[in-house]
Amino acid sequence: MENKNFVFGHKKPDTDSIASAISMANLQTNIGSYSESYRLGNINRETEYALKTFGVKQPELLEHVNENDNVIMVDSNEFTQSVEGIENANIKMIVDHHRLNLQTTNPVFCMAEPVGCTSTILYKLYKQNDITITPEMAGIMLSAIVSDTLLFKSPTCTDQDTFIAGKLSDIAGLDMYDYGYRLLKAGTNLDGYTAKEIINTDSKPFEKEGIKFVISQVNSADVDSVFEKQNELETAIENEILLNNLDCYVFMVTDILKASSKVIVLGNRRDVFEKAYNTKLCNNTAILEGVVSRKKQVLPKVLDAIN
Amino acid sequence: MENKNFVFGHKKPDTDSIASAISMANLQTNIGSYSESYRLGNINRETEYALKTFGVKQPELLEHVNENDNVIMVDSNEFTQSVEGIENANIKMIVDHHRLNLQTTNPVFCMAEPVGCTSTILYKLYKQNDITITPEMAGIMLSAIVSDTLLFKSPTCTDQDTFIAGKLSDIAGLDMYDYGYRLLKAGTNLDGYTAKEIINTDSKPFEKEGIKFVISQVNSADVDSVFEKQNELETAIENEILLNNLDCYVFMVTDILKASSKVIVLGNRRDVFEKAYNTKLCNNTAILEGVVSRKKQVLPKVLDAIN
Repeated sequence: MENKNFVFGHKKPDTDSIASAISMANLQTNIGSYSESYRLGNINRETEYALKTFGVKQPELLEHVNENDNVIMVDSNEFTQSVEGIENANIKMIVDHHRLNLQTTNPVFCMAEPVGCTSTILYKLYKQNDITITPEMAGIMLSAIVSDTLLFKSPTCTDQDTFIAGKLSDIAGLDMYDYGYRLLKAGTNLDGYTAKEIINTDSKPFEKEGIKFVISQVNSADVDSVFEKQNELETAIENEILLNNLDCYVFMVTDILKASSKVIVLGNRRDVFEKAYNTKLCNNTAILEGVVSRKKQVLPKVLDAIN
Repeated sequence: MENKNFVFGHKKPDTDSIASAISMANLQTNIGSYSESYRLGNINRETEYALKTFGVKQPELLEHVNENDNVIMVDSNEFTQSVEGIENANIKMIVDHHRLNLQTTNPVFCMAEPVGCTSTILYKLYKQNDITITPEMAGIMLSAIVSDTLLFKSPTCTDQDTFIAGKLSDIAGLDMYDYGYRLLKAGTNLDGYTAKEIINTDSKPFEKEGIKFVISQVNSADVDSVFEKQNELETAIENEILLNNLDCYVFMVTDILKASSKVIVLGNRRDVFEKAYNTKLCNNTAILEGVVSRKKQVLPKVLDAIN
C-alpha cells in the first residue's frame, strides 16, 4: 500500500488552512490516495465555530514531517510558513492562492490561482475528479471562502469565489450571508484572549533582502476595544521581535464592516512600513483606510518598499 | 484594451517550448485575452520539421521583456532559463511540467503537473475552457509530446501523455507512431552542425550551493558518429566553461532507440557527476545505461550529489 499523504495548510492556521486540509484529504482519499488532514497550530474561534456547526472533527496537530513523507500543501507553498522537515519531504501536490515562493527537487502537481480562497480551487478539483461534495464538506469549504473574503468584501474576492460560495451554500442548505455573518462574528470575539494570543492569532513571517518581518492580522467588529490593550499588545510584540530576531512587526486590526485597518508597527525597520505607505507612524500606529487584505494590500507594498 | 500577453517557453527552445507557446497563445486569444507566442532562441531541426508539417509559422524571437509586460510562462518557471527582464514583468500564468523554482510578488495562475510534456497539460486547459483544438494545433501539440517523451519511451512519459497524444493524433489525422518516428529522426540529424551548435542545441544552466553547471542534451540515432567529433566537442565545451564561469558541464548524447546516454563531462567539479553516478569518467566520458531524461534521471542525482 502506498504511504498516506499528510495534508496541511500553514502555521497559525486560519479557517481556509484547516478547511482546505480537511476537504483535500477527503477528496484524495475518495480518489484512492489515502490522506489525512493535519493542523500546524491551534485553531481559532472562527474555525472552531465552523467545525462545530457542521460536525466536523478537528484535525490532529502535526509538529514535523520525516524525510520522504508524502505531503500535500494547501493554502500555502512557502517553506518558512510550513511544517518542520518540509524541505526533505516528498511534496506531491500544492493547491494554493498565494504568491509562489518555493523550490522543489522534482516536478509536482501545483494548482494555484489568484482567487480569494483555496477552497474555491478545491471545489473545482472536486468537479474535475467527479467526486460528490457532502453537506459537511460544503459547509466548511463555504466557511473558508466567507473567512478569506470577509463575506465577499475583501479586494481579494473574485466572481469565482462568490459563485462557488453560492453553490456550496446550496449543498450545505443554508443562507450564506446569514451564516457568514454569524461565522465572522464568532471569529472576531477576542474576549478572554491574552495580548500574546491576540497577536499570534494569524501572524505570518516573511523575509526579503535579509529583512525579517511579521505581518499579523485580527478582525474585529470593535477596533477601539482592541486598542484599549495597546500597551499589552506592544509588550507582546516586542517579545516576539526579540525572540525571533525580527526587524519589523506589523500588527493589523481589521474592521470588516468599515473596510479599514488600524496597525501597530514596531521594530528597528519601521521605516520600511512608513515608506510603503508614505506615512508617519503616530504613537506606533496608523490607520489604513480601505485596507483589509494582508496578501493583496500590505505584503506587496512592504516587499516593494524593501526593494 | 488590455495589453497583450507575451507567451514563451525556455531559452534554447525545444519542440515543447515552441509548441506550448503557440498553443497557449492561441487558447488565450480564443478566450479573449489577446496573446502572442515568442521563442527565446533559434528553433531546432525537429521543431522546424513539426512547424513545416502542420503549416504553422515560427514565433518571433523575444530578446527581453519590459517592466510590467504581461507574460505567460510555458514549459518553464525558472527565471534563470527565461527571458531578460522576467523579474520585473507581470507574470500572469505559468503552465509547466518541471520542478518549481520561482518567487512571484503576487498570486498567479499556475498549473503544473508531473507529466511528460507541457502540451499534455494544455490539452486539458483547452477542454476546461471548451475551446476547439484545430488540426494544426493538434499536430504541433502532438509533436511536443512525441519529442518530450521520446515517442513514449522516456521514464517521464505518463499514461496521460500517451492517452492525450492519441486524442491529438486523431484530430490531426495521422498515425502518431509513424509521424513520431519521422519527427524524431528529423530532430537527430546533426549533419552540417558545428560542435558549438551541437552542444548548444538544448543546454540548460543550473546553480546550487554556488556550483554553476550546465546539462546539455542531444538525441541521436548514431551516437558513435557524434563521438567522432569528441575533440571538437570538448573544445566547444571548454569555451562555454570559460565564457560562463562554469564548474561543470555535462553533455549527454542520448540514443533514443537503445534508451541509453553517452556523456562528456568537463570542468573543475566533475567529481559531482562522478559522485552522482558512483562512477569514474574514462577519457572524460561515461555510458549511462537506461538514462534518457535529463530532468528525471540526471538533474535530481546531480543536485543530490551537491548536497
